Amino acid sequence: MSVYTEICEQPEVLAALLREQWPAVQEAAKAIRSRDIAYVFLSARGTSAHAGFYAQYLWGMYNRLVVASASPSMFTRYQAAPDLSRALVLGISQSGESPDIVEVVAEGARQGALTMAITNAPGSPLAQAADFTLDVRAGAEKAVAATKSYTAQLLTIAMLSVALDDPSGERRAQLGRVPEAAAAVLAHEAVLQEIAAKFRHMERCLILGRGYNFATTLEWGLKMKEMAYVAADPYSSAEFQHGPAALVTPGLPVFATAPQDAVYEDVLGLLERLVAQQAQLVVLSDDERALSLTQDSIRLPALPSWLSPLTAIIPAQIFCYHLTVAKGNDPNMPRGLNKVTRTT
Amino acid sequence: MSVYTEICEQPEVLAALLREQWPAVQEAAKAIRSRDIAYVFLSARGTSAHAGFYAQYLWGMYNRLVVASASPSMFTRYQAAPDLSRALVLGISQSGESPDIVEVVAEGARQGALTMAITNAPGSPLAQAADFTLDVRAGAEKAVAATKSYTAQLLTIAMLSVALDDPSGERRAQLGRVPEAAAAVLAHEAVLQEIAAKFRHMERCLILGRGYNFATTLEWGLKMKEMAYVAADPYSSAEFQHGPAALVTPGLPVFATAPQDAVYEDVLGLLERLVAQQAQLVVLSDDERALSLTQDSIRLPALPSWLSPLTAIIPAQIFCYHLTVAKGNDPNMPRGLNKVTRTT
Repeated sequence: MSVYTEICEQPEVLAALLREQWPAVQEAAKAIRSRDIAYVFLSARGTSAHAGFYAQYLWGMYNRLVVASASPSMFTRYQAAPDLSRALVLGISQSGESPDIVEVVAEGARQGALTMAITNAPGSPLAQAADFTLDVRAGAEKAVAATKSYTAQLLTIAMLSVALDDPSGERRAQLGRVPEAAAAVLAHEAVLQEIAAKFRHMERCLILGRGYNFATTLEWGLKMKEMAYVAADPYSSAEFQHGPAALVTPGLPVFATAPQDAVYEDVLGLLERLVAQQAQLVVLSDDERALSLTQDSIRLPALPSWLSPLTAIIPAQIFCYHLTVAKGNDPNMPRGLNKVTRTT
Repeated sequence: MSVYTEICEQPEVLAALLREQWPAVQEAAKAIRSRDIAYVFLSARGTSAHAGFYAQYLWGMYNRLVVASASPSMFTRYQAAPDLSRALVLGISQSGESPDIVEVVAEGARQGALTMAITNAPGSPLAQAADFTLDVRAGAEKAVAATKSYTAQLLTIAMLSVALDDPSGERRAQLGRVPEAAAAVLAHEAVLQEIAAKFRHMERCLILGRGYNFATTLEWGLKMKEMAYVAADPYSSAEFQHGPAALVTPGLPVFATAPQDAVYEDVLGLLERLVAQQAQLVVLSDDERALSLTQDSIRLPALPSWLSPLTAIIPAQIFCYHLTVAKGNDPNMPRGLNKVTRTT
């Protein structure tokens, strides 16, 4: 099984999740509603931490839940834990194996907090440590770079948001459009391959997005690093102005996710300034103004903005796959990495 | 006033803070203890957000307080706010001017949460929005790159931790050693200038640290970007293994903060692997094993590990200053940046 195959499986993985996982998600929502949760305490690393940023925005906006990110070393190395008794303690991990992620959830359980796992491995140590588990059901993911397990994590997070609060049923209906939209972006592969070939000598780049798609920004950056060995620097358009803007020079490659959204004008404004500074842009958007900033643009399917991260990451995955091949490297075996990362 | 002068003022700024600010810090501690705070909700960007990471570790370990980071766009752009009623809502900002940071604190106040500002501008909009303000009293900071206001923020965070919980008075006594330790690291300037000259052609680098000094890692990275225009990639030694480790190539410059600490063996192990991969290391440590990994090492003063970020950032600031000069750029006027950054 290759990373390419796993990228292409995503429409079916997402469709199966929507067909099969509502009962488990409803159970989780019931458990959460049964407790007076003051905030969510999240333990995750790498790609799973990026899914956590999606949860931070989505649950904050639709479910009024604050998501705090754990520093696992506090639990495993300093052996001092904050008061988690009023938290929903959540571990997100594809493999469910990393001891530091498991330890945070185990400590939450010791303190009497409600605990939850979102994982692709329902028999894993993480799942065993948690009160309940949402299996993302992505199927075996053998490539080192996570792809289908990431979009399945995002969809699970979105389904839980809907299960917690969707009185009209409107958002649940919108979720049903995701698999088809994911298939639609896969159709841009040939153009993405052409763009990737242009960037085959790239060593560093900037990646931009904001709001819901801050998660896409971080995940695109990680794919650039672990597959294509490009030093990618991901930023929200706001944070970028607090210092890193000094890095911009003519010719700097910049990759941006900019769907129509409450933060769209802000991201667009930054992209327009970067064009004036002669940066070399690649843009994912569903709006003409962003798409017309560069020849190297990919049209995103029209989806409600809260679901845009589910499809926006797919062209990014395909781009990184083809960039890696164009650079002459093996996209299935990144140097120095293993599929299961056990940090403590 | 130049950034160089402001770096050198730090021992005196920190000493003055310890002389003058205990009454205000005790008042803040009293207000916090008077409420049943479930977690801290932090709004900050850039350097101030890095100070917030120090608070996340320190308050988590000594005061059992979880610190959650706000996504200000949720408040300013999406106009949907999570439930903050059980939070201490904290804004950290040198200038106290950025509308998005102010808006998060204002929303906390509207929801009836206890609100606090840590700022160098006690008359600023941020201070006006908050129930109480801790003035970091760094004096006017005119250089665009924040230096003395950062260490003053760290010390204010440390003083508040002590005011909240220090039954033996031991930690308050340890705080008294900080100004002298800050002066001691300034004495390494000549060596730092020599090392900086070696790296004057550097375009990208890796910055490593963990635990308390994750804040140092992030702040060193930002100084590299905004002063020296180096694409610096900051990581904790654990997160680094979840993907970015694929970036390592022989000759890659790596800057690390590694004082003796609960996470020291972990950081040291990663540095040893990087030496084997022929990375080009610069190390800040108080232990021979880390110092002996490279000729380009700087000895940190012996301080309890919870205070190490207060002195560890100073050699990093000096290094970035001299690197910027060695590159022929103006360290006082980074391109494209203003002192007060107003993001919304």
